[in-house]
Amino acid sequence: MLKFFKSYGIYGLMALLLGLPLLSVAQDNVRWKMVTTWPPNFPVFQEGVERFAKEVEVMSNGRLRIQVFPGGKLVPPLQTFDAVSQGTVQIGHGAAYYWAGKVPAAQFMTTVPFGMTAKGMNAWFYHGGGLALWDELYQPFGLKAFPAGNTGVQMGGWFNKEINTIADLQGLKMRIPGLGGKVLSKAGGTPVLLAGGEIYTALERGTIDATEWVGPYHDERLGLYRTAKHYYYPGWHEPATALELIVNLKAWEALPADLQKIVEVAARALNLDMYAEFEANNLRALRELREKYKVDVREFPAEVLAELRRLTEETLNEEAEKDASFKKVYEAYRAFQADNDAWNAISENAYNRARTQE
Amino acid sequence: MLKFFKSYGIYGLMALLLGLPLLSVAQDNVRWKMVTTWPPNFPVFQEGVERFAKEVEVMSNGRLRIQVFPGGKLVPPLQTFDAVSQGTVQIGHGAAYYWAGKVPAAQFMTTVPFGMTAKGMNAWFYHGGGLALWDELYQPFGLKAFPAGNTGVQMGGWFNKEINTIADLQGLKMRIPGLGGKVLSKAGGTPVLLAGGEIYTALERGTIDATEWVGPYHDERLGLYRTAKHYYYPGWHEPATALELIVNLKAWEALPADLQKIVEVAARALNLDMYAEFEANNLRALRELREKYKVDVREFPAEVLAELRRLTEETLNEEAEKDASFKKVYEAYRAFQADNDAWNAISENAYNRARTQE
Repeated sequence: MLKFFKSYGIYGLMALLLGLPLLSVAQDNVRWKMVTTWPPNFPVFQEGVERFAKEVEVMSNGRLRIQVFPGGKLVPPLQTFDAVSQGTVQIGHGAAYYWAGKVPAAQFMTTVPFGMTAKGMNAWFYHGGGLALWDELYQPFGLKAFPAGNTGVQMGGWFNKEINTIADLQGLKMRIPGLGGKVLSKAGGTPVLLAGGEIYTALERGTIDATEWVGPYHDERLGLYRTAKHYYYPGWHEPATALELIVNLKAWEALPADLQKIVEVAARALNLDMYAEFEANNLRALRELREKYKVDVREFPAEVLAELRRLTEETLNEEAEKDASFKKVYEAYRAFQADNDAWNAISENAYNRARTQE
Repeated sequence: MLKFFKSYGIYGLMALLLGLPLLSVAQDNVRWKMVTTWPPNFPVFQEGVERFAKEVEVMSNGRLRIQVFPGGKLVPPLQTFDAVSQGTVQIGHGAAYYWAGKVPAAQFMTTVPFGMTAKGMNAWFYHGGGLALWDELYQPFGLKAFPAGNTGVQMGGWFNKEINTIADLQGLKMRIPGLGGKVLSKAGGTPVLLAGGEIYTALERGTIDATEWVGPYHDERLGLYRTAKHYYYPGWHEPATALELIVNLKAWEALPADLQKIVEVAARALNLDMYAEFEANNLRALRELREKYKVDVREFPAEVLAELRRLTEETLNEEAEKDASFKKVYEAYRAFQADNDAWNAISENAYNRARTQE
């Protein structure tokens, strides 16, 4: 030490005194565990989450390291909410509508049939009051939420029966979860719950007549074109499936301000990046499905869509009667959506019409 | 020092040895100057940039501080590119099409008439090769670019003459810059260049017959509804005006990896946040323009839009003949846009039709 003092003198001493508190800051190396609702290596979904964890680590210079576990590795996929809520892990990634049993209104934070597309959802989340409502919904569970990814408009699904009128939905056995499934029920169909891994075989064996999955990219990878006759659009039931990051509130509050901001900003960046990746992959996969696999891509008849929209409104109103918090969020969402519709009509919709008309 | 050693012993010594390099890291406090092309307090644009600077400061715990100067404060707005390129300042914010005189192909990095909307632009930038092309264009100028904001589909503009046929554009004096202006010329109109602050008076005095500006939110603030008869849509000339962050390459390379990642991720987050803010403000302002100011909002006739689209293709082909790099980027852009159109047709466009049909 004396030798050190001789060499560095007063400046060395100052460096030491300054260095120690800095050292203690730099030492608060935070280690988080993260669970997701996605299978290992699930393209875009799980891959995006792993990119997020890596970015947080680089940005924080290793001070916040997030170890990512895919669904089923540490806890079952659908226990992600509970695991983060109870503090078993500090952070999770999934989709809010998986927790509809606990928080019915959470469905608005993912997507609802005939709801807003990604553009409107993000405007609502960040600058229209949506995110504040989300925090309010999750606060009782000790959770903080961040929008973190979006699939864009999904596809209507793969069908082994033609859908020409609303009557064709009568008796239709379709893998379709959540509110979309409730709407199908109203139309006389039978919604079936199946995990991703079970869909292909069920469709092949005729256990189901139809299934929705994600979009061209994921649907191609699941090989659904080999076992279904028609590929219907649009995905009226999931027009903008928003994904979520959830953080345990105590873990969140224990973070210093810089690490909090790193997580918040990285989540926002992930939100855009995943959406862009879905879009870029979907547009390439759609071309391939058509050119390489000669898939029959067809539109639901307007009459069918109009009826599904009517049944959706009925369904949402019924849900609102059952749950005060669903009602509150529905009203806020619906008011924003009305203005968003009016604006879309003269911006994106009018432009896209001008762009594509012959 | 001996006393220190007695008190803290070997752990103190280790802390010292560990602390000194950490201290030197923590001391590389980077101070950047940033210039923008926007007026002081310009809503969303300049405000968003200032939010970005603040977020970077918090994320880096003060290690990277960016002092933001609005256009004209340090250098004139349209010298932003040169100031960052020459290293007068380290970072800037603006829109790539302002540099069309130097880099004609840069226009594809902002928007082109009848180009892609924000969704397609972001898919192209981040996952379709667009950003790599952008870096290639700016590399000779010692610049690195990041997409950083998007206005969404702009409005067609404010007109004191009705536009019923393409002949109504003959002799029309309109404030419309860039490629949109070239297309207007082809239709027999006269594009006029005016800064934002000059538009209102020019329209009032009849020096111009029409002007485009941004969208409902900014147009309302400029008071254009008081001096123009008709508000036309859609903004065929700017369907998704992407904004840019540009960083001096030497300043960029001098940053440690964590600060580089902080800038990159914060720019991506800003890209989404500004777009969401534009959308949320525009949908509210549109309602106000209609309800409070009884603005006559009307659509360009389909025939006019079809002709403008034809003239746009002519214009882009002519520009491609003049500049090899424009041609290269145009070809990449156009190929991506074709797939994007096909995907949009069955996703967003089909969904929005289903959502809004009566």
